[in-house]
Amino acid sequence: MKIELAENYGFCFGVKRAIKIAEENTNAATYGPLIHNSKEIARLDKDYNVGLVEDFKTFQPGDKAIVRTHGIVKDELQQLKENGIEVVDATCPFVTKPQEIAQEMSEAGYDVVIFGDDSHPEIKGVKSYATNGAVVVTSVEELEDVKFNERIALIAQTTRKVEDYMSIANYLIPRYKEVRVFNTICNATFENQDAVRNLSKQADVMIVIGGKNSSNTKQLFNISRENCQESYHIEDESELNNGWFREKKHCGVTAGASTPDWIIQNVINSIKKSID
Amino acid sequence: MKIELAENYGFCFGVKRAIKIAEENTNAATYGPLIHNSKEIARLDKDYNVGLVEDFKTFQPGDKAIVRTHGIVKDELQQLKENGIEVVDATCPFVTKPQEIAQEMSEAGYDVVIFGDDSHPEIKGVKSYATNGAVVVTSVEELEDVKFNERIALIAQTTRKVEDYMSIANYLIPRYKEVRVFNTICNATFENQDAVRNLSKQADVMIVIGGKNSSNTKQLFNISRENCQESYHIEDESELNNGWFREKKHCGVTAGASTPDWIIQNVINSIKKSID
Repeated sequence: MKIELAENYGFCFGVKRAIKIAEENTNAATYGPLIHNSKEIARLDKDYNVGLVEDFKTFQPGDKAIVRTHGIVKDELQQLKENGIEVVDATCPFVTKPQEIAQEMSEAGYDVVIFGDDSHPEIKGVKSYATNGAVVVTSVEELEDVKFNERIALIAQTTRKVEDYMSIANYLIPRYKEVRVFNTICNATFENQDAVRNLSKQADVMIVIGGKNSSNTKQLFNISRENCQESYHIEDESELNNGWFREKKHCGVTAGASTPDWIIQNVINSIKKSID
Repeated sequence: MKIELAENYGFCFGVKRAIKIAEENTNAATYGPLIHNSKEIARLDKDYNVGLVEDFKTFQPGDKAIVRTHGIVKDELQQLKENGIEVVDATCPFVTKPQEIAQEMSEAGYDVVIFGDDSHPEIKGVKSYATNGAVVVTSVEELEDVKFNERIALIAQTTRKVEDYMSIANYLIPRYKEVRVFNTICNATFENQDAVRNLSKQADVMIVIGGKNSSNTKQLFNISRENCQESYHIEDESELNNGWFREKKHCGVTAGASTPDWIIQNVINSIKKSID
């Protein structure tokens, strides 16, 4: 039986990359939680001695600081470097991009508008790169009292819904000479859904891994079952049933956004064993 | 009695400017109709010897060619100059702007998309400035089979409705990395409407000049009457009635988009005489 992973599954590209970076940089500490998954953070601490520091002033010269996927504020990054701390950047490239755009547009004289949550680490970081400041909003109403110059650069938090982003763009475009709309939204969730849709059309059994309460995993499972009747939603390998794979030719595997790769690998190994 | 013209009325800025240029350049010919008003074109021919040439090859070295408000194709402009013809540019600055944007964006590697009518002189002109070509569309459907690169510059015909323009922007933005939306729509019609609204709130008698069948003039008249009961819609000074101005303190005047200034001036002069 062929076992095939969905083209996109589980952790997004940026999270996978950050974990790889953390594993390659033992005896370090992340500044802020590397990702939003405590099991993974505990594993990195236990297996790789990669700890967690909440205040960047805690770092001492010679320490190794891993920058979290969400990125950090520009000044803090600079201070870490100036203080002789070895900085390993695990900022997701999809977050680095809006940081660069914010800086470039601000320097080019555009008014920078960020659609996102002012208190979120990602947005604190992106905003800090807008040399001449940026206006952060979550709704059109918040723009109504703001008067910009002629040219606006519009940037979105990576995890926002594109429909909501468009409402901001629709408000600004008719009111200003030029609105440069940067599509900085990352479609990881939708990519996982597209991928399970494709895979479940080909497979004759589908394993969907993720928390039973996980909303995005349930969505993946529902999409899978539409195309492949023998779809199973499990949390880990202990729930596998050998009978599911009898006389099957093609087993598809996917996982929700909060499922670490090592749990997925454990599941795949168990499936392989059961068909030996 | 105070006689006050609306802040915006009649011919738009670009048309007024073009006529002034034509009047200042006697013994010339416009390449294509200078504006879409035959009375005005006949007047310019009669009073200023500014004729009309339909084929640019008709111009001979030493001739003076006036470029129409809608602009012309870049190559033809260049050929006129190369052929020793004196070129006087009456292109509306609101049309020159999208021409410049098309060239700049095309040279900067953007895919240029123009929302407008491919057969309209303005759009033929703007498109010709996009060094690497441009896609001209009037609807989202026309975009569905086109695949662009990552970065798009979006330009609109000056006379399009902003709501329609937004539907094009809304289609493109979620699909590409960057969409630079240039608000090249000219709001002259809406400016006339805003201006008559403001003026009719202050005046105690309103004169709205324009063709009885002119849709935009009727709109101006309706707005005027909402705020000033004594609003009158006339085509020229022959329809004025002295009684309208008796015991009035403030007479507002506006005109539809197809009404030349000289008709408006005749009306104002007649009102002045009637209150002497």
